[in-house]
Amino acid sequence: MYPPDFKSHSVIHAPVTLFPTPFPKKEFNKAIEVQKLFNVLYVNAVKDKNWFSTILSDLANFDPEFTGKLWKTYLKALDIGTVQKLSLGLFRSDYMVDSKNGGTGDLKQIEFNTVSVSFGGLSSKVGELHKYLNATGDYQNNGGQYYQADEELSISESCQKLAEALSQGDYYYNGQIKGDTNTVILFVVQPNERNCFDQRLLEYALLKTHGIKSIRLTLEEIGLKTFTDKETKKLYIKETNAEISVVYYRSGYSPNDYPTQACWDSRLDLEISKAIKCPSLSTQLSGAKKIQQLLTVEKIVRNFLSDEQDVSKIMDTFVKIYPMDDSKEGSIGKKLAFEDPLNYVLKPQREGGGNNIYRESIPGFLENLSKEEWGGYILMELISPPKH
Amino acid sequence: MYPPDFKSHSVIHAPVTLFPTPFPKKEFNKAIEVQKLFNVLYVNAVKDKNWFSTILSDLANFDPEFTGKLWKTYLKALDIGTVQKLSLGLFRSDYMVDSKNGGTGDLKQIEFNTVSVSFGGLSSKVGELHKYLNATGDYQNNGGQYYQADEELSISESCQKLAEALSQGDYYYNGQIKGDTNTVILFVVQPNERNCFDQRLLEYALLKTHGIKSIRLTLEEIGLKTFTDKETKKLYIKETNAEISVVYYRSGYSPNDYPTQACWDSRLDLEISKAIKCPSLSTQLSGAKKIQQLLTVEKIVRNFLSDEQDVSKIMDTFVKIYPMDDSKEGSIGKKLAFEDPLNYVLKPQREGGGNNIYRESIPGFLENLSKEEWGGYILMELISPPKH
Repeated sequence: MYPPDFKSHSVIHAPVTLFPTPFPKKEFNKAIEVQKLFNVLYVNAVKDKNWFSTILSDLANFDPEFTGKLWKTYLKALDIGTVQKLSLGLFRSDYMVDSKNGGTGDLKQIEFNTVSVSFGGLSSKVGELHKYLNATGDYQNNGGQYYQADEELSISESCQKLAEALSQGDYYYNGQIKGDTNTVILFVVQPNERNCFDQRLLEYALLKTHGIKSIRLTLEEIGLKTFTDKETKKLYIKETNAEISVVYYRSGYSPNDYPTQACWDSRLDLEISKAIKCPSLSTQLSGAKKIQQLLTVEKIVRNFLSDEQDVSKIMDTFVKIYPMDDSKEGSIGKKLAFEDPLNYVLKPQREGGGNNIYRESIPGFLENLSKEEWGGYILMELISPPKH
Repeated sequence: MYPPDFKSHSVIHAPVTLFPTPFPKKEFNKAIEVQKLFNVLYVNAVKDKNWFSTILSDLANFDPEFTGKLWKTYLKALDIGTVQKLSLGLFRSDYMVDSKNGGTGDLKQIEFNTVSVSFGGLSSKVGELHKYLNATGDYQNNGGQYYQADEELSISESCQKLAEALSQGDYYYNGQIKGDTNTVILFVVQPNERNCFDQRLLEYALLKTHGIKSIRLTLEEIGLKTFTDKETKKLYIKETNAEISVVYYRSGYSPNDYPTQACWDSRLDLEISKAIKCPSLSTQLSGAKKIQQLLTVEKIVRNFLSDEQDVSKIMDTFVKIYPMDDSKEGSIGKKLAFEDPLNYVLKPQREGGGNNIYRESIPGFLENLSKEEWGGYILMELISPPKH
């Protein structure tokens, strides 16, 4: 979100902590370990077309203006037919440490993001900042080092890893041919993009490490500056005739990103093009809070992961999430929302933490909605991070 | 210099070219080859105390307010006695290609800088910028690469090299002991330093590559935040008791850098401390234009360089420089300044190209000075760079 009175020429740095926040190593490693399981879980959930369609068509009714339009666009693309069977996902699973049960705390998932995940570029920089400040001695009054730099301060490789994933998209688009393919990656960005420095770092890594060029366009520019070959469905940049291998969305996750019908048309055009989408519409939609809630239910998880140990590892990262619908679990959720709101957060389906309703605000908020609308929300147990 | 209406919170990027300027490879390599000869030439000139003192005491009269004060401070330090025999020089020899004689042009020296040479940090970045823009295809309408990246676009290693030189100062200060010496390098900077990003790159390279910390102080802060041990003459930071191995001046080259007498006192204190100065007062003073002029005279060069081939290589880089004094060469200079000013530039002794007088402005400028003041200037043949 833009702050009040934001001018497009203003400079606002990304929010960073000057001090690294301690995080228990065991839980940190657990997060790394379960990431691939989460990838498999979400991909398998999307692949189960019947299950996925039932949930999404229901959700579309609760949020016709956005989730509904994404869903309709997805159905239209299915109807027209898609030539690209591959889809690329750059996911970010957010966690906090929950100290409710004592000890060093337990890794608990906040949410699983499937579109336009930010700060992979800047995260590497923040790690470098902490390492630098530690090395200068600024963390200690006596000028010494507060942390054991190599063991305690790790620099996230997120920037290089995300760029590598995009380069893999390019590689698979080109039939796994190595070398100079001349295809480019399209970054779909917001107008007056505020987060460009995070994105640019990926762009630079793509070019430097993988020799892959990229181009930045807003959804409104797609129709003017790209075209799709009618036969091959290959997507091209008009000006240079460069072929686009991967459409990487850093926009398109909020209704504000689609100011005109032309933007929705462009989203459809991209979806049915041969370029690999990062993410495809179905992958983006799998990030809905309702899906997240369902994928914390053990018997549903078991449908998508075969190994019992894997299921158990995943289940360990969940706090309780209740639907707010007419199911049995839903009736518990509705009760807790009014009787024990201080331990919960109410979340709508859409991306972005700014729309959450916390604690004592929950009952009043729900009372102002019609009960039919409640089903568009989930009720999630609050995590109590340790205080440092 | 600050631009008009400059606010200290303003951001102004350093001036850079978006396109690299072609430079003949042979002349480029020549510049690298003669650099060490220039270092030896200037060091030997400073070491010849009689010769150096005669020139400088004369120059001090022409510019009592600045060169004079530096010279007096130098003499005072000599009088008190200095405990540090080593001095560190980070020099920058500026060149242009002179196309007057046709061909690909000849390497000709503009000036030799002996104090606070800038842009060694940013230069490496500018090379990276050009390499990036070439790789993106932005230099060509068809998106191709305009330059052969590896052969034609070299990235200057100036940032790493300057940091390495400073680390060598630290190493020699510590009696050539390797490992964690805990000494720090003092960057003497200007208040509201505009060029901090250039300097910070050196600071980061020092810390990252050599594990050496640094601290930034203005000349006005030196007296408040450092102290010298009376016995050992070792220089320390008050707050942390950190011992300073090298005093690196990125300030102190202009009268504006000494707003109070305390600044001059601090300069003296630093000069007589045990820390290695980069540069010492005599090395800084050797950058006077008058010295540069004298060091283009072949028989003087021969006094300081023994090898005839070395002398010849150095002489090849000079354009004609005339004194404006009562010598025989001086009378030629005075004549040319009025009869052929369009081919010349008139330069004062002090640092900074902003004070030069060009071409048709020379006669009028000289007429407004008393003839006694002319001796403070040199008249230099203009270089005609090729047009691209």
